[in-house]
Amino acid sequence: MKECFKHHPWQIIEEGFNPHYNKIAESVFSLGNGRMGQRANFEEAYSGETLQGSYVAGVYYPDKTRVGWWKNGYPEYFAKVLNAPSWIGIKFNIAGQSLDLAQCRVDEFKRILDMQTGLLSRSFKATLPDGKQVHVHAQRFCSMAKDEIGAIRYAITPVNFSDSVTITIDVDADVQNMDSNYDEKFWDEVSKSAVEGECIVTAQTKKTFFHVATGMRYRIVQGGDELKASVKTLLREKYAGNEVTVNFTAGKEIVIYKYAAVLSSENHPKEKIAEHCRQVLDDAMATGYDQLYADHVKVWEHKWNECDITIDGDVAAQQGIRFNIFQLSQTYTGEDERLNIGPKGFTGEKYGGSTYWDTEAYCLPFYLGTAEQKVARNLLVYRYKHLAKAIENGKKLGFTDGAALYPMVTINGEECHNEWEITFEEIHRNGAIAYAIYDYIRYTGDQEYLVEYGLEVLIGISRFWAQRVNWSDDKKKYVMLGVTGPNEYENNVNNNWYTNYIATWTLQYTREALDYVRGKNPSAFQLLLDRIQFSDKEAQVWKHITENMYFPQDSSRGIFLQQDGFLDKQLMKVTDLRPEDRPLNQKWSWDRILRSCFIKQADVLQGLYFFEDQFDIDTVKRNFDFYEPMTVHESSLSPCVHSILAAKLGYEEKAYEMYLRTARLDLDDYNNDTEDGCHITSMAGTWLSVIKGFAGMRLKNGELHFNPFIPRQWKSYSFRIEFRQRVLKIKVTGSRMEALLVSGEPLTIHFKGTSHTLNENQVIEQPL
Amino acid sequence: MKECFKHHPWQIIEEGFNPHYNKIAESVFSLGNGRMGQRANFEEAYSGETLQGSYVAGVYYPDKTRVGWWKNGYPEYFAKVLNAPSWIGIKFNIAGQSLDLAQCRVDEFKRILDMQTGLLSRSFKATLPDGKQVHVHAQRFCSMAKDEIGAIRYAITPVNFSDSVTITIDVDADVQNMDSNYDEKFWDEVSKSAVEGECIVTAQTKKTFFHVATGMRYRIVQGGDELKASVKTLLREKYAGNEVTVNFTAGKEIVIYKYAAVLSSENHPKEKIAEHCRQVLDDAMATGYDQLYADHVKVWEHKWNECDITIDGDVAAQQGIRFNIFQLSQTYTGEDERLNIGPKGFTGEKYGGSTYWDTEAYCLPFYLGTAEQKVARNLLVYRYKHLAKAIENGKKLGFTDGAALYPMVTINGEECHNEWEITFEEIHRNGAIAYAIYDYIRYTGDQEYLVEYGLEVLIGISRFWAQRVNWSDDKKKYVMLGVTGPNEYENNVNNNWYTNYIATWTLQYTREALDYVRGKNPSAFQLLLDRIQFSDKEAQVWKHITENMYFPQDSSRGIFLQQDGFLDKQLMKVTDLRPEDRPLNQKWSWDRILRSCFIKQADVLQGLYFFEDQFDIDTVKRNFDFYEPMTVHESSLSPCVHSILAAKLGYEEKAYEMYLRTARLDLDDYNNDTEDGCHITSMAGTWLSVIKGFAGMRLKNGELHFNPFIPRQWKSYSFRIEFRQRVLKIKVTGSRMEALLVSGEPLTIHFKGTSHTLNENQVIEQPL
Repeated sequence: MKECFKHHPWQIIEEGFNPHYNKIAESVFSLGNGRMGQRANFEEAYSGETLQGSYVAGVYYPDKTRVGWWKNGYPEYFAKVLNAPSWIGIKFNIAGQSLDLAQCRVDEFKRILDMQTGLLSRSFKATLPDGKQVHVHAQRFCSMAKDEIGAIRYAITPVNFSDSVTITIDVDADVQNMDSNYDEKFWDEVSKSAVEGECIVTAQTKKTFFHVATGMRYRIVQGGDELKASVKTLLREKYAGNEVTVNFTAGKEIVIYKYAAVLSSENHPKEKIAEHCRQVLDDAMATGYDQLYADHVKVWEHKWNECDITIDGDVAAQQGIRFNIFQLSQTYTGEDERLNIGPKGFTGEKYGGSTYWDTEAYCLPFYLGTAEQKVARNLLVYRYKHLAKAIENGKKLGFTDGAALYPMVTINGEECHNEWEITFEEIHRNGAIAYAIYDYIRYTGDQEYLVEYGLEVLIGISRFWAQRVNWSDDKKKYVMLGVTGPNEYENNVNNNWYTNYIATWTLQYTREALDYVRGKNPSAFQLLLDRIQFSDKEAQVWKHITENMYFPQDSSRGIFLQQDGFLDKQLMKVTDLRPEDRPLNQKWSWDRILRSCFIKQADVLQGLYFFEDQFDIDTVKRNFDFYEPMTVHESSLSPCVHSILAAKLGYEEKAYEMYLRTARLDLDDYNNDTEDGCHITSMAGTWLSVIKGFAGMRLKNGELHFNPFIPRQWKSYSFRIEFRQRVLKIKVTGSRMEALLVSGEPLTIHFKGTSHTLNENQVIEQPL
Repeated sequence: MKECFKHHPWQIIEEGFNPHYNKIAESVFSLGNGRMGQRANFEEAYSGETLQGSYVAGVYYPDKTRVGWWKNGYPEYFAKVLNAPSWIGIKFNIAGQSLDLAQCRVDEFKRILDMQTGLLSRSFKATLPDGKQVHVHAQRFCSMAKDEIGAIRYAITPVNFSDSVTITIDVDADVQNMDSNYDEKFWDEVSKSAVEGECIVTAQTKKTFFHVATGMRYRIVQGGDELKASVKTLLREKYAGNEVTVNFTAGKEIVIYKYAAVLSSENHPKEKIAEHCRQVLDDAMATGYDQLYADHVKVWEHKWNECDITIDGDVAAQQGIRFNIFQLSQTYTGEDERLNIGPKGFTGEKYGGSTYWDTEAYCLPFYLGTAEQKVARNLLVYRYKHLAKAIENGKKLGFTDGAALYPMVTINGEECHNEWEITFEEIHRNGAIAYAIYDYIRYTGDQEYLVEYGLEVLIGISRFWAQRVNWSDDKKKYVMLGVTGPNEYENNVNNNWYTNYIATWTLQYTREALDYVRGKNPSAFQLLLDRIQFSDKEAQVWKHITENMYFPQDSSRGIFLQQDGFLDKQLMKVTDLRPEDRPLNQKWSWDRILRSCFIKQADVLQGLYFFEDQFDIDTVKRNFDFYEPMTVHESSLSPCVHSILAAKLGYEEKAYEMYLRTARLDLDDYNNDTEDGCHITSMAGTWLSVIKGFAGMRLKNGELHFNPFIPRQWKSYSFRIEFRQRVLKIKVTGSRMEALLVSGEPLTIHFKGTSHTLNENQVIEQPL
């Protein structure tokens, strides 16, 4: 854990120039707008430690798989988030010296990310090797209002000199991924142009042939007037720039406004993309920086209005939760059903892919609770559109007749991951995709989704489960062999309770969905069944499996067993571990981790979280008490589930402890890996910890229930919830809870079992 | 299965030029002498498909590990067999055309490996693009008598032209490994020299800094006289040659004698290695080709005398067994205790490393039965010398107090392998190393070995087992979790019966060894105990483990279970598989293989083979009948064990079927991979199938027992056995068995339970 940044309710503040954690700061201060994103790299040249990162949503590269020992069934490539052409460059040559903070004395360095307005500011005083000083105030944002535009306001003042200075303002597609498997560059040039004041480079990805046009225009202003400059155009392979020579006068500020446009062939015809790029640039120039910014702020205002959580009395916690919400909102806006939520969002390239089971298991509830219904719906449709690929993936592994296995990691629906124990065995992801359909419908009431998309996905997944189990003559039950559960610190186990449970649940839910669609829309039902050659015999088999599935348990302890062999392990507690053994994944050899009892992330408990209605509180308690002390939470996805269950069980201190582990994970670099990017998907877990944990929000029979408590460290907290065309505001203080129906039809909610029906603008309150 | 080669009792014969299986032939026709080896690459230039391979025993390169996903504990490199400088090159330029069989019409091509004399011959008629024809007879051998010398006799006759021809005779260290992880070259130049008639290149391996001096001298003779030639010396980076221009006269044969010397810094001081190389070359020139060859043949004569097996009535079987014995004898002579038996010997670079558990489990009995005692002893001492590294390896994985885990694959004692389920979990290899000590002592009676080396190794291994098991509160037994047994088609299983058994056996045997050494040599005993800080408490723990180990079994079937979850699998037979599903490892995804019941190689049966005295015949039969039908034998190490057990159980057809799978594996390219090299270590299994299988040889209380049968396809078979300073010859025909004591003190042997005491030169016989 590090304390790199100041605590503040709305801002992330870095004070002083700290090259040794520059990469951490670059991640934390990243900007995005759902369409494009940018790490907090400097506009100037920088020869110090940095991870350059510009990203364009949906644009990826299939990097050839690298393994030590090939296993049959591995995918041929790993689809990677691409480091895209850079649009931020504003480089200075002052008397033969590059303005490069790694080569200067740097004073008064300050970097601020204002989360309320989505603005990154940076200021510093740099002393060049020859003693010349400049004072810089730079600001930038990725417009939330016009999501193909980025804008920079770069103000520079020569403190102690007057001289002619050369400024290079450019777009650069000659960029590389740090995690390229074979050190290749992934971009080829398509076209480029550079005229005075405008440069555009169109580049295409190798193999996937995405085109991205990156353009820029700029203005240089002094005292409100356009500054006179001599301009030289620069054109190199995959690069276009303007070299602008201007006169610096001591004490006189010069302001550079740089407008960038980033367009992808996902949204524009390739043959028109450069032309469209020019139009976007024209629009940006015409609108101007201040107006662009005002429009951008307005969108943020609306976002925060939708999804802010306020915490009174604990600035670190307030900053933490806002940071999580801010990053989630930057990463995925839900407007494009082709997109999804990458594990690092627009903050880094690690892990590649864009879609893990994180989306369904962690992110979906966040978007359900904070955005219009279509946002969550688009996340489901995304998987619907990948169904054919999931069936193909199943086929590749030997499954037949339309059995769908969704990939562990994907961008375009094809599997990317290449580690057999995960790729082929961590199949519970399939269950999470089915569960998300249930979760979405439960929350929204949008049963129609089943007819349109849901049932077909459920059938594909159920077909997979039915083939993946086998009858054990020995147990006289169905078993599921060779799986990896959510706890990746066990591999290739038999009868992972969670996987067996979610598989059985899927089979059952699919049968219910069949009945629903059959009744609701018989003709659509029949069309679907014919198309996918579904026969009712399949559902009969599913019924048999549901009724005869094996679930490992320990009846003496009254707990479910994570897998068949769990009780043969030496049962220890995390508190028995020496500090120098943590984190286990960096200190212990893999086999030692595997045969230890220590759990990376919620596994049985993940099931009890998903399906809590099906278990009494004592069962949850017994399992929590057994598994929690063995859980090391070395996955960012783990603490939130424990926090929610702890809250449910009244373990308030534990709930708060787990909350803290998730809320400030990246801000305080808990896992020593923020430099690679932020843990975007697990950020939704922070939100869940508050809403489902502290506030105890649950949905029962289509109505919202709250069973809140407040951590003793806090004075109050409040949040807003979107629910079935209503907006609800909840506030919890040390002594009472209150609800306001901000908008929408009258709504019945339940506070600790007491029902209240609210009308619009009505507030109700109740003692805690 | 392919039929590339003609059947012949002593020769491998390829007729006709078949570029599409040239790489297979290059493997099969490989030559070696325990010190150096050479694939059957052509002396001339060849632009067709080829895998160039020259090898020098003990010289390796640590290639940086390549993995998809790093796991803690992986080794940083994989020590690889190196493709060493080439000494065979004799290249012709005839009227501006290269003599390159890929560019010529080739007639009368014939390649013969004479196994009796270790000579590779090749003849062909080549028509160059311009119509010029040459007739070539080439021969070469790697001298078994002087193991740093290779010799070539290359006779070429211009058929239809006379012209001046340029011949390049060279040594070339600018060579590469095909399996380099990062496409690096592994050799750097140290020095080189080229004068008329002699070239020497000294190269060193990167990182490991082995020096290898490769030199050559030559004579060119026509009609018995030295041919006049003009010579130009060639020197390039890592290369030295002579460009010799001679006059070819139509119909007149020219013979080139090329003598090569290959010296390694393992045997020569680096600063003298080039000088020593020159001396070896001088010696070779002085001795001359014919005498070198005569000396070489004499050693082979002696070898065959020691270890030949004759089979009458089945030429394919005769050729097969001799090919196996020939390759084993070329690979390892046992004269250097630093060396071991690589999986591909000197026939290819695949799999790297030089030492797998194959050595102890398969090869040791071959060398015990066919060579002087010191040869097998050196194989054991090799592991003794790696004990410190094995302890270090254990430490790396979290074991303490001198616990030794021998590597899965090694050259210098360090682990090379990087696949967690094997590297960290296929730990039964440790048991095979302990078993080999027992096996060696049982066969030789050399109990003294325990005092000198054996006990210390046994203690290291036992310490590992004692830490690797854990007490299961649930089972009230010791269990061993997370292992991979010999059947690599199951991974990370619990309580692999074989591993549990050999671990428990090791603990027991080590305790017996402690008692023996304590009684035999108390002072050496105490010294050892002090040095390795052994306390008797450890042995007490071992006793407790031995007495309380858990062994999975199915009492209703009366069988041992391969692992805890085996009976949950869907039990099928290999005969249930569709032909298009075979081999499984090329057709099924890895997870499907893992959760199937199909077995790659003997696992429970491997234990019943090692420890047969501890199980009654019915137990062996029940287990064989259960597991054999599920075994796909997709490891070359599998069929021999099944063959031996089948023979024991009287399943004669099965024993013969399994024998055939091993004997002609490479000759007929059963597994479609001979082009990568031959399966050297499994060749010992072929020998075992005959000796322990068909002839039923066993050792009981220090005496040899035979319980032979003869496959109905054969008329007779015979073999020689070295046993405690005696040489015994056994012959089995359709009606009788006979034994001759070739040399040594009187010996009591048992034929089907009947005892015979033989004196030297005495023959006894008995009806079958």
